[in-house]
Amino acid sequence: MSLSPFEHPFLAGLFGDAELAALFTAEADIAAMLRFEIALAQAEADCGVFAQETAVAIAKGLEGFKPDMDGLREGTAKDGVVIPEFVRQLRRTVGGEAAETVHFGATSQDVIDTSLMLRLKPASDVLKDRLTLVTDALSVLAERDGARSMMGHTRMQAAITITAADRVASWRALLMRSTDRLASYAEQGFAVQLGGAAGTLDKLGEKGAAVRARLAEILGLADRPQWQSQRDGLAEFAGLLSLVTGSLGKLGQDIALMAELGGEIRLSGGGGSSAMPHKQNPVAAELLVTLARFNATQVSAMHQALVHEQERSGAAWGLEWLTLPQMVMTTGVALTTANRLLGQIERMGRMPPGAERMATS
Amino acid sequence: MSLSPFEHPFLAGLFGDAELAALFTAEADIAAMLRFEIALAQAEADCGVFAQETAVAIAKGLEGFKPDMDGLREGTAKDGVVIPEFVRQLRRTVGGEAAETVHFGATSQDVIDTSLMLRLKPASDVLKDRLTLVTDALSVLAERDGARSMMGHTRMQAAITITAADRVASWRALLMRSTDRLASYAEQGFAVQLGGAAGTLDKLGEKGAAVRARLAEILGLADRPQWQSQRDGLAEFAGLLSLVTGSLGKLGQDIALMAELGGEIRLSGGGGSSAMPHKQNPVAAELLVTLARFNATQVSAMHQALVHEQERSGAAWGLEWLTLPQMVMTTGVALTTANRLLGQIERMGRMPPGAERMATS
Amino acid sequence: MSLSPFEHPFLAGLFGDAELAALFTAEADIAAMLRFEIALAQAEADCGVFAQETAVAIAKGLEGFKPDMDGLREGTAKDGVVIPEFVRQLRRTVGGEAAETVHFGATSQDVIDTSLMLRLKPASDVLKDRLTLVTDALSVLAERDGARSMMGHTRMQAAITITAADRVASWRALLMRSTDRLASYAEQGFAVQLGGAAGTLDKLGEKGAAVRARLAEILGLADRPQWQSQRDGLAEFAGLLSLVTGSLGKLGQDIALMAELGGEIRLSGGGGSSAMPHKQNPVAAELLVTLARFNATQVSAMHQALVHEQERSGAAWGLEWLTLPQMVMTTGVALTTANRLLGQIERMGRMPPGAERMATS
Amino acid sequence: MSLSPFEHPFLAGLFGDAELAALFTAEADIAAMLRFEIALAQAEADCGVFAQETAVAIAKGLEGFKPDMDGLREGTAKDGVVIPEFVRQLRRTVGGEAAETVHFGATSQDVIDTSLMLRLKPASDVLKDRLTLVTDALSVLAERDGARSMMGHTRMQAAITITAADRVASWRALLMRSTDRLASYAEQGFAVQLGGAAGTLDKLGEKGAAVRARLAEILGLADRPQWQSQRDGLAEFAGLLSLVTGSLGKLGQDIALMAELGGEIRLSGGGGSSAMPHKQNPVAAELLVTLARFNATQVSAMHQALVHEQERSGAAWGLEWLTLPQMVMTTGVALTTANRLLGQIERMGRMPPGAERMATS
Repeated sequence: MSLSPFEHPFLAGLFGDAELAALFTAEADIAAMLRFEIALAQAEADCGVFAQETAVAIAKGLEGFKPDMDGLREGTAKDGVVIPEFVRQLRRTVGGEAAETVHFGATSQDVIDTSLMLRLKPASDVLKDRLTLVTDALSVLAERDGARSMMGHTRMQAAITITAADRVASWRALLMRSTDRLASYAEQGFAVQLGGAAGTLDKLGEKGAAVRARLAEILGLADRPQWQSQRDGLAEFAGLLSLVTGSLGKLGQDIALMAELGGEIRLSGGGGSSAMPHKQNPVAAELLVTLARFNATQVSAMHQALVHEQERSGAAWGLEWLTLPQMVMTTGVALTTANRLLGQIERMGRMPPGAERMATS
Repeated sequence: MSLSPFEHPFLAGLFGDAELAALFTAEADIAAMLRFEIALAQAEADCGVFAQETAVAIAKGLEGFKPDMDGLREGTAKDGVVIPEFVRQLRRTVGGEAAETVHFGATSQDVIDTSLMLRLKPASDVLKDRLTLVTDALSVLAERDGARSMMGHTRMQAAITITAADRVASWRALLMRSTDRLASYAEQGFAVQLGGAAGTLDKLGEKGAAVRARLAEILGLADRPQWQSQRDGLAEFAGLLSLVTGSLGKLGQDIALMAELGGEIRLSGGGGSSAMPHKQNPVAAELLVTLARFNATQVSAMHQALVHEQERSGAAWGLEWLTLPQMVMTTGVALTTANRLLGQIERMGRMPPGAERMATS
Repeated sequence: MSLSPFEHPFLAGLFGDAELAALFTAEADIAAMLRFEIALAQAEADCGVFAQETAVAIAKGLEGFKPDMDGLREGTAKDGVVIPEFVRQLRRTVGGEAAETVHFGATSQDVIDTSLMLRLKPASDVLKDRLTLVTDALSVLAERDGARSMMGHTRMQAAITITAADRVASWRALLMRSTDRLASYAEQGFAVQLGGAAGTLDKLGEKGAAVRARLAEILGLADRPQWQSQRDGLAEFAGLLSLVTGSLGKLGQDIALMAELGGEIRLSGGGGSSAMPHKQNPVAAELLVTLARFNATQVSAMHQALVHEQERSGAAWGLEWLTLPQMVMTTGVALTTANRLLGQIERMGRMPPGAERMATS
Repeated sequence: MSLSPFEHPFLAGLFGDAELAALFTAEADIAAMLRFEIALAQAEADCGVFAQETAVAIAKGLEGFKPDMDGLREGTAKDGVVIPEFVRQLRRTVGGEAAETVHFGATSQDVIDTSLMLRLKPASDVLKDRLTLVTDALSVLAERDGARSMMGHTRMQAAITITAADRVASWRALLMRSTDRLASYAEQGFAVQLGGAAGTLDKLGEKGAAVRARLAEILGLADRPQWQSQRDGLAEFAGLLSLVTGSLGKLGQDIALMAELGGEIRLSGGGGSSAMPHKQNPVAAELLVTLARFNATQVSAMHQALVHEQERSGAAWGLEWLTLPQMVMTTGVALTTANRLLGQIERMGRMPPGAERMATS
């Protein structure tokens, strides 16, 4: 399996990110969906929809659940969504009377969207932590080399002298604001999705809101009325991701230009060339530009997916599946790459007059 | 001149928006740039960069300033940006000793970006007001027709019965969140841009930050360190615009589908056909989908423009010029269209059993 | 009117293109729509749908037709499309019995799409001619400076020495292929659109195909069965435009980088800076990058518009209106800009050893 | 590994395509790169660059080559590209004097781009064959149900009666033109890439063109001067892919709307719902819309990648890696899905009057 550079046996050397990829495996998805179904039964029991024993039987019954992956694939092929077959497998595993209560009142989208939230939440934490690593590294860089002078460039021309600190401050300000954005998004919360067949929780009657609130609590997610055809939260999140990668793309472009202009940056560990062994390609800097432009494209698909017709859309929903996990990965890889790149900067800005000679003597 | 449907002699019947277009005329831009230059002189005088009389002379001298538009066009052709010629014209108008002080310490981008902010701010207010009109209209609709039943549809198939209120609530929730987003964005503020040649306000020495703060105060903008190569704020704003139009696109798509399915909506004032006089086309609903998909595309350009190289980029900057004003217009038109469309809904949801007969007897 | 930089009082100094803009004015559109209606009557008379006198009466009656532009705008607002009101005005102008025969058998989309083709065809010729100017200029440049050496750069690093001719050959090959593409597209032809209410030319019975063929002949367009919901031809054309601008964007990026690196290119006529009078900004080169990225974004909208539902779509159609004219302008401006930029190259490639001294002594 | 729905353990039920995926595995890439290196040695020997024995030694030596995948991943991480390490492994395998001759005169991009071409060529054949299956299925459908009447819809409203044949003809015309486009693209050819360090084949001297022509011949590719920084051919191909998926998206949207409107289509094998066992979701039709919108987004990235700076760009190149294989898969899956969907149509168009009763009696 290697269509995607993010999961490719050798391209993953550049594009791989084991920590984030682990959140988007089928296994992680199934584990989160299982958590949803067990928590749903618990929430329903807690709200008196059915007896506690039923919830206990479900939780017990599903303890060692092993999915039949071939069955899930065939089910997805037939139903367009994995849940009907997934629930069938769960019910078979639980057995007895409680079986029919599994998934009670929920619909496919409830499980899949909530599973996504259960994984976007830790993904967002990972990204925030990495953002901090990068902004910290920029502080260190500013402290070490900030006083060095360099040529400011505007419109692809030498302008006036600035300091390394000036340029680093621009990079850092961009990323600090995105850190704040991610934090504020996370505060508002990754929300549970529970709407039932058409968003009205029709089978839960007056207990709908209470069950949803309890479910959110158990899962550690925010409680919010169903958003099954309201995809603004996801498009907004995608936008935040692309702001991060766009900012890192600017940093990468700047460093690639410094490397090409020469004299004002010294990088270690550049990429080798098969034709010119003497070259040191600013591979990490270029990669940041690639990732920025990729996310800047994908964000468009997430906004197209806002046109989600009626109570639930299959067409627009699938567009998110194809796009959002890749955007998270792109962002994660860009942050790791930026951190690596900053670590490769041996010097930024000019040597003080006379120092060049001393350095080599 | 009619290349753009937003300004087209007859297409403006659909795409026109006089209120917002007025903020993006060359005249409005020039007026805002003039405000910037006068306020800059005032701020610099207030901070002791030069004497108050100089600022007074500049303000007086520019009172009746009339731009030579041909000159500005030729200047833009030559310099890639209007400011060198604009400043030349201002200086010529001011005359005397004060002339050379006009634009002191600033660069082209300071003027143009700040002019944009001075106009995005009222544009944002217009959009917020229109959002409120739409969400209010949705409340009225929910109150009037909310109890009527209608068929919920999921994945392009009849699912279960819901109420008109259920569907309206989804539309409204989307727009309420975008109202909050716009409000919170506006709170953080449309910020002055002042950086000088390479972002360091080199000519203002230690007074740089004070001048910028005073300039922001005079102009009623937020004070923020230069962001001339940090375009995240603009890309974020573009994203908010597209969240609004995407949400309205969902509403439009839903209404167009109701109109096609028939029976659950009665619209007045549909568009006529040149071939089939009997038809009532849901023109406004379709237009909302058009505008949603247009903005969903444009948002990508704004994210590509994040890769803004070095201290200032001409290439990425121009991409914003081509994109952002259109996105604001698209959003404004979508809101007005949505409001008009909601006003055309004579009934949403099914007639109660027996009512159909009574209504026609 | 100045929302669009293409039609802006001063930004048009950079983005303006009078020759192409003239093809997209409301007046040009109306003139082409008028041609359609007169030619349609002629074609129908020629095929015996009605008497020749009727066609003559229509042609005569419309000789001095002056549109009521306010009426057209109001009609567009109401109907979502200008044609119902346009036909009303035409019929009023023709008067008498022939009046009702105006537009016989046609629908709005027939008129509007054919009008577009009548203007895309000369636009395509303009673009082809400009492409030839650019490729010719590249030949001249290669002849003059081709033997000079310069540093080849790969992955933003100096690689090995090449000649100016090597790099120019790459630019030229790109544009030659696009010239061929445009020529081959034009050969297959800009096709008439005639389908009637739902694409079946229902009112013309068995004469439908003959009328369409005759109409195409009169208008000088290709004959093709109705394509009212088959938009592949337009998306393909948009793609060709973006291949041209993308190729010129590469050329622009290369020249901007040469200008920044210094030494291997000497440009005249660069843009001035309001803050730094000594600067010569490579404005035209940057603009090529801007235009490339703009079209690369818009091409996505044209592909989204392929999802044109049923027999005719209002929503997807409007997306084309917002996008395609801008893409043509973008391409035209890019070609003119490239030509201007190539004219500014005083020298490309290194001076031969010793020459630098001679040149300045 | 399951980030991409195309390779996901259960989502591949919808998005999987074993035949095309096989062309984009790391193994297939390595096999094609190996073919390149062996053929290059052969071509160089045939042109007298070195002795035939050297080419024979290389071919022999590489017969059983087993890549060290971990090494390749680490090399990619370091160099930004797999080739330096790949060549190292090849040389180690060949051993002896011939070892140093492996990859002579070539650069990373030569190997990787040519490997892509060696796989796009059969991919294109697969797509063409599937297009034929779909257009054939449409012919069969038109023959069986074409005479049935159905309601033509324009602008989301019932217009006039048409036949099933009319609508099917529109779908088919779209796909026939794309079949022709793919055929004509393939005729012009998937071209070998051979440029050496900076596109000038510097190490091959006057034998460069001959070696390239011979290499193309051995590999069954078209011969063309180096296109390492001329990416128009790839962007054009991406556009063709998106024209196919956009056309299928129109077909899918039409069928989803027919399924929602009811009465004019009978589909078997629709997707089940976990909440509403009675539903038959038009899963395949929705999927076609998803895939159309996905490719319509991705095509933008491929056009952004045209801005390929200087002799070779790492940044723009990587953008292609992230995008093009997915676009091929998207197109392949859409074609298979369309074929499946057409097979599910039990009836299209209305039953003749009276038939409905007979059918159920």
